[in-house]
Amino acid sequence: MAIKQFHFAVVGATGAVGQQIINTLEKRALPIKKLTLLSSARSAGSSILFKGESITVQEATPEAFEGVDIALFSAGGSVSKKLAPEAVKRGALVIDNTSAYRMDPDVPLVVPEVNKEDIFLNKGIIANPNCSTIQMVVALQPLREKYGLKRIIVSTYQSVSGSGQSAITELKRQSQAVLNEEDVNPDILPVGSLPKKHQIAFNAIPQIDVFQENGFTFEEMKMINETKKIMHDDTLQVSATCVRIPVVTGHSESVFVELENEPDVAEVRELLSQSSGIIVEDDPADQLYPLATRAEGELEVFVGRIRKDLDVPNSLHMWVVSDNLLKGAAWNSVQIAEAYIEGKS
Amino acid sequence: MAIKQFHFAVVGATGAVGQQIINTLEKRALPIKKLTLLSSARSAGSSILFKGESITVQEATPEAFEGVDIALFSAGGSVSKKLAPEAVKRGALVIDNTSAYRMDPDVPLVVPEVNKEDIFLNKGIIANPNCSTIQMVVALQPLREKYGLKRIIVSTYQSVSGSGQSAITELKRQSQAVLNEEDVNPDILPVGSLPKKHQIAFNAIPQIDVFQENGFTFEEMKMINETKKIMHDDTLQVSATCVRIPVVTGHSESVFVELENEPDVAEVRELLSQSSGIIVEDDPADQLYPLATRAEGELEVFVGRIRKDLDVPNSLHMWVVSDNLLKGAAWNSVQIAEAYIEGKS
Repeated sequence: MAIKQFHFAVVGATGAVGQQIINTLEKRALPIKKLTLLSSARSAGSSILFKGESITVQEATPEAFEGVDIALFSAGGSVSKKLAPEAVKRGALVIDNTSAYRMDPDVPLVVPEVNKEDIFLNKGIIANPNCSTIQMVVALQPLREKYGLKRIIVSTYQSVSGSGQSAITELKRQSQAVLNEEDVNPDILPVGSLPKKHQIAFNAIPQIDVFQENGFTFEEMKMINETKKIMHDDTLQVSATCVRIPVVTGHSESVFVELENEPDVAEVRELLSQSSGIIVEDDPADQLYPLATRAEGELEVFVGRIRKDLDVPNSLHMWVVSDNLLKGAAWNSVQIAEAYIEGKS
Repeated sequence: MAIKQFHFAVVGATGAVGQQIINTLEKRALPIKKLTLLSSARSAGSSILFKGESITVQEATPEAFEGVDIALFSAGGSVSKKLAPEAVKRGALVIDNTSAYRMDPDVPLVVPEVNKEDIFLNKGIIANPNCSTIQMVVALQPLREKYGLKRIIVSTYQSVSGSGQSAITELKRQSQAVLNEEDVNPDILPVGSLPKKHQIAFNAIPQIDVFQENGFTFEEMKMINETKKIMHDDTLQVSATCVRIPVVTGHSESVFVELENEPDVAEVRELLSQSSGIIVEDDPADQLYPLATRAEGELEVFVGRIRKDLDVPNSLHMWVVSDNLLKGAAWNSVQIAEAYIEGKS
């Protein structure tokens, strides 16, 4: 029996995540019949090499989705809001990497290591969670299954590439200016659409995305709400403080976890190292722990600094690092496509 | 009546903190009769300008403390261990900025905003707490007095200057190498005396100081144990994850606080802004929150991002930033000297 071949589309093909999606599709053994690359009118016309073939990037229009089986969206929430329904109308499965549909009760929010089965509840759209959420839930899921999960308090150390290619350029430009003892003139971060800009080079900015009424930022509320949705548990207590630091790629997270039952550190290391998608790097004697620079380019979630809290029973601290463009975005989207295709065949 | 004049000594005068102590002594109106500057034999001989007078740095020997009234030590724990008793023997009050005596039950550990009265319990030595501890307890003390303090979970974002001048040079050298796409060749951090070195430029290193048996680093245990000692409360629950990030000066901290009684955010802002040594920067609508780059060179502790936890009653999150060389080290030491002199007169 011939394996079914799929027509893929990547929306936002010229962006930081879009490029990683194309790279990841190239490396994996997906049954791709055709790849359509889409972008805004402004970026259309450029060519991208895929498996030795030059593909011209086209403007993302409703008609561009004719014949597409699986469309991977990563071009911002407003593009997804406008075009994902058009793609679905034309028979495509949309895997959306923006926040547009994540909290929509009709849209499954999927991290394959946690809730792969939700993929098959889709009504045309599957949402890819926020980068900072994905790596945390991958690390927490084995603990949840074994010990039960009560409460999470996370502080993040997030890289600038989550804000796109322009933020990477901005960090490098600012860093050089500081080293040259020149004015920094912040222009992009923390939030492109907001008036105030802050220096990110040699600094830490405790704002990612806009503030909500409750004093948390939207990024923090994503971590809180998405974790509950992915884990199907509204009783879970989740708190987040999200901070941008001068790292190009790779988010790090300091995670406090309160469990239902008492964990043993050696047992936790063993459990996590046998879990899908996780690499344990945890040997204090050898100064081994996850580092953003080492996670860059890797598909896995790295976990280390695992230690029991000194006061609160059943509690752990850990340090969780992953490439925010890969497991945090492109790779998780492609993983969803792989699981979908596997489930279909 | 003439005001008593004091003979001061600074031990470690050529180091990053030592230089800040000299700057701070110069700016404040202390009754300084004479200033003796001391260093290792290697750095001795250089000259430092103080209030228009050139002072030659001398080698720190036991005899160098003859006639000294107040000696500010900041030259590493081993120097303090060796020379602080010699200074005390010669009649000096030692204010020690190393970890050598902090947990000694005979040595008060002082942050003037919290436990100024402990200064007068000294038996010759007063210890200055660790930089990351000082700024946190300053921010917590007003909350503790008003609401009662139960539990703290802190994740730090610490600058490299806490590791001395060589770490600042190292961060700049590595950053330029990354921007030039050259090899980084880490040489200093995370811990000079340990074999493994990691890249700090565009990275986050979850290790400050050496690991303890319990999986926490010594820096983390300092925050835990020193907070309990300064606040005279062994029942306080404190957990810390200490992380070095590529910032030159200014430590930032994501602090979760559980209180005995329910706080109100507006009331907390008001309370903190009226407290000694604190500046509240907390206006989400204006994207105002503390930033390391803005705290550099300032004496105060900056607090913002104050918000109630969404799940746990009586709990708050906040973002606490201060200049680790000033309030975290030099200024806190000079403040102790000021309070001591004030108490004597």
